[in-house]
Amino acid sequence: MKKKQAYRHATGVMYYDMETAMPKGGAEDFAKTMGVLSEEIYKMETSEELKALVAELYEHKDELDEITRREVEEHQESIARIACIPMEEYVDYESTVSMASSVWQKAKQENDYKLFEPYLKKLIDYNRKFALYYAPEKDPYDTLLDQYEKGMNREMLDRFFDEIAKAFRPLVEKTAAKRDEIDDSFLFKNYPIDLQDKLSREVMQLMGIDGNYCTLGEVEHPFTDNYSKHDVRITTHYHEDMLASSFYSVVHEGGHALYELNTGDELIGSPLASGASMGMHESQSRLFENIIGRSYAFVKAIYPKILALFPEQLKGITDVDFYRAVNKSVPSLIRTEADELTYCFHVMIRYELEKQLIGGTLSTEELPEKWKELYEKYLGIRPETDTEGCLQDSHWAGGSFGYFPSYAIGSAYGAQIMESMKKDVDVDACVAKGDLSPVNAWITEKIWKYGMLKKPAELIRNACGAAFDPKYYVDYMTKKYNQLYKL
Amino acid sequence: MKKKQAYRHATGVMYYDMETAMPKGGAEDFAKTMGVLSEEIYKMETSEELKALVAELYEHKDELDEITRREVEEHQESIARIACIPMEEYVDYESTVSMASSVWQKAKQENDYKLFEPYLKKLIDYNRKFALYYAPEKDPYDTLLDQYEKGMNREMLDRFFDEIAKAFRPLVEKTAAKRDEIDDSFLFKNYPIDLQDKLSREVMQLMGIDGNYCTLGEVEHPFTDNYSKHDVRITTHYHEDMLASSFYSVVHEGGHALYELNTGDELIGSPLASGASMGMHESQSRLFENIIGRSYAFVKAIYPKILALFPEQLKGITDVDFYRAVNKSVPSLIRTEADELTYCFHVMIRYELEKQLIGGTLSTEELPEKWKELYEKYLGIRPETDTEGCLQDSHWAGGSFGYFPSYAIGSAYGAQIMESMKKDVDVDACVAKGDLSPVNAWITEKIWKYGMLKKPAELIRNACGAAFDPKYYVDYMTKKYNQLYKL
Repeated sequence: MKKKQAYRHATGVMYYDMETAMPKGGAEDFAKTMGVLSEEIYKMETSEELKALVAELYEHKDELDEITRREVEEHQESIARIACIPMEEYVDYESTVSMASSVWQKAKQENDYKLFEPYLKKLIDYNRKFALYYAPEKDPYDTLLDQYEKGMNREMLDRFFDEIAKAFRPLVEKTAAKRDEIDDSFLFKNYPIDLQDKLSREVMQLMGIDGNYCTLGEVEHPFTDNYSKHDVRITTHYHEDMLASSFYSVVHEGGHALYELNTGDELIGSPLASGASMGMHESQSRLFENIIGRSYAFVKAIYPKILALFPEQLKGITDVDFYRAVNKSVPSLIRTEADELTYCFHVMIRYELEKQLIGGTLSTEELPEKWKELYEKYLGIRPETDTEGCLQDSHWAGGSFGYFPSYAIGSAYGAQIMESMKKDVDVDACVAKGDLSPVNAWITEKIWKYGMLKKPAELIRNACGAAFDPKYYVDYMTKKYNQLYKL
Repeated sequence: MKKKQAYRHATGVMYYDMETAMPKGGAEDFAKTMGVLSEEIYKMETSEELKALVAELYEHKDELDEITRREVEEHQESIARIACIPMEEYVDYESTVSMASSVWQKAKQENDYKLFEPYLKKLIDYNRKFALYYAPEKDPYDTLLDQYEKGMNREMLDRFFDEIAKAFRPLVEKTAAKRDEIDDSFLFKNYPIDLQDKLSREVMQLMGIDGNYCTLGEVEHPFTDNYSKHDVRITTHYHEDMLASSFYSVVHEGGHALYELNTGDELIGSPLASGASMGMHESQSRLFENIIGRSYAFVKAIYPKILALFPEQLKGITDVDFYRAVNKSVPSLIRTEADELTYCFHVMIRYELEKQLIGGTLSTEELPEKWKELYEKYLGIRPETDTEGCLQDSHWAGGSFGYFPSYAIGSAYGAQIMESMKKDVDVDACVAKGDLSPVNAWITEKIWKYGMLKKPAELIRNACGAAFDPKYYVDYMTKKYNQLYKL
């Protein structure tokens, strides 16, 4: 376990470094080294000694204490996932992933999809193949979905997205008709990056993120990484002409960070010391970004700091104006910049595409055009470039297929969790006062401290006293947008 | 070799990350992971298979081509250095080193030597012990010196430093008497860090450093690291009230970077693809920092860019004023900020202390006081705090004892190399024009391209047509300071 953790740590730091500090020319060396290390990891994970040890423990798992039992289950699963793949394919896949991010960055910067396409194709083929190795009888996309969120599959997601779309579509139409009622033009003035950086520190402090254990880096596409609860990295991307972009990236990634930073001490050094699933993780990031971060209470708490940093740009703008602006709903091309209401449609588009890419009914050649078509269909707008189209996200370049739905499921988890938290905590009151500690304490107790000890469904039941139900999400959004636009 | 290179790469990146991005709280996890990885490295380096393979090649080394022969020699030596140490001690040492940097940083920031002392003591004891494992019959400090610069020992250094001190001491006295003739006060105005950062990019470009393969990071104590000629990292530390500090750090580290960036392509992937020794490396960094970087020609080339960035701070200052200011000689407390003339005395002090620390005649308890004494003796000034005293440098925290003399030897190499280069290249003329490519091409041909293929003595002979001789350094400094102060 120590060795596994050390390799996870080293390769994690290498990825972080690749995104933040590595000179572009280092990409090939990086891929070579990741190839060698992945071979080491493969050999360790599939060694007869480890397999026998874990198998024996697994057989006796009911005799183990809770933590050890869950650790054994996780080991068993991670061995099963890797051992079904021939070593050469595993190493080649890891080398391809480690090269693909650099190629994707270049392709995105130069709007050159052709550059990235061969990597994308290879990653899709491998993901399909590996899913079939693991579960030959199962649809490969279902296998991938399940990997990010236990129990998630197409049937369940189709139903979920139908319900969401049915509820949100009328809201999108109504808000579109009233879009001129909210002015957000002041968010697009010139906001110097060094001052935006100061704002990032302010908001991290407000959220209760301890700088001793969490740093902030700058990257092309924001993400969070962590190697333990004592070393968490959030990242952002500053745009000089968009204040809300980095601001809400920091709040989003800060939500991920809080989850990791508040893992229970009893899990330190254990493979369970990390968020329960991608859906649970995104529930925390999206809860902070939107339900809390885009609430009037939160804006009220942070706005004096924002105003102090940008008195010229925000002259005459009140906290209510600011609150309304960061919630303005307008169909747009970039998922990470999308408002809370149209956001789910961005996810649905990716879900639709992944189903077909992994299912084999859509080729990588056809992807850019299909992407544009779906944006027209779902959001009524059409990207002109692939940079604003199918090259915008980093996930596929990182080999993640089946991840995107976690954002939507996470948003829905978040709404349900918030409803439940409000029974115990006067969230709006503490947030408005700028004291998030009661919020953090509540979520720590109900979710964060457990790491992977409990599974997502268990955590939702633990926090909410009921099973997952998307109706809270629908109710929350309907109420919020009705109030905001007085629909 | 691929595996060795991969581990060197991964641990190198982890160290770089620790210095640049890691949250402080991550130090213990970092040390744990480095412990595990160092055990893997130890096992790999000392495996019977590798030992037997290298031993057989070494036996037949005269039948090998030049590159393979030198590779085998390097493998043989690196195995010998590590295999004489018991694994537990090696792993404990590596874990201690990986913890010590963070502790040293904290100790330096808080002027709390006591915090760092136990680590320092442990590192000294291990270094002495390991040197004796490797060469039981030899003085341990001689063994350590030889590790950084083949053939270097106390006898040779005592002679070298005597000669230098004899020549430089009168210069220091004479310039001290005339110190008010040069005004450098404008270097200590307010220089915003974002503009200093722009200046760093300008000077990297002037030096011919390709940003595709070399990045610039910010750290507590500047250093250069590299994992191949395609991934080189230089670092700096910005002080808002000292323009020359970061500027010359970048030029210094840039010299290291150029050496690595211009390694011959035939050495890519080989353990020889790196600078020949620490003395050779410092010869390049100090050549660029001082002999080139502090020449009037270089100042003339870069000064218009500096003036454009800081028109207010440098109002009325000419390039000649700037040139004189960055060469002003004043005994000072901090080695990295020292002028070219007093610099060697900083190194002599450390050499004196290391001899005694490794020799066992000076305890870590006595170190802070002894440091102060020697500053009084050699430079006539006394640090008031340990932050400005024995805590100022990062080297000992990194486990490097015997490294410091490389700076002085390197400066002397540099002067001799420059004399030789001037026979072929009109250095002042190209530098003044802002075109360093003839300089870089000459050094590439004579030194850089060889990596570790040739040893330092061979490289000096190759570049200068004669053996190393400190007289060039003495002559250069005497002439420079005579002219500058019209002594």
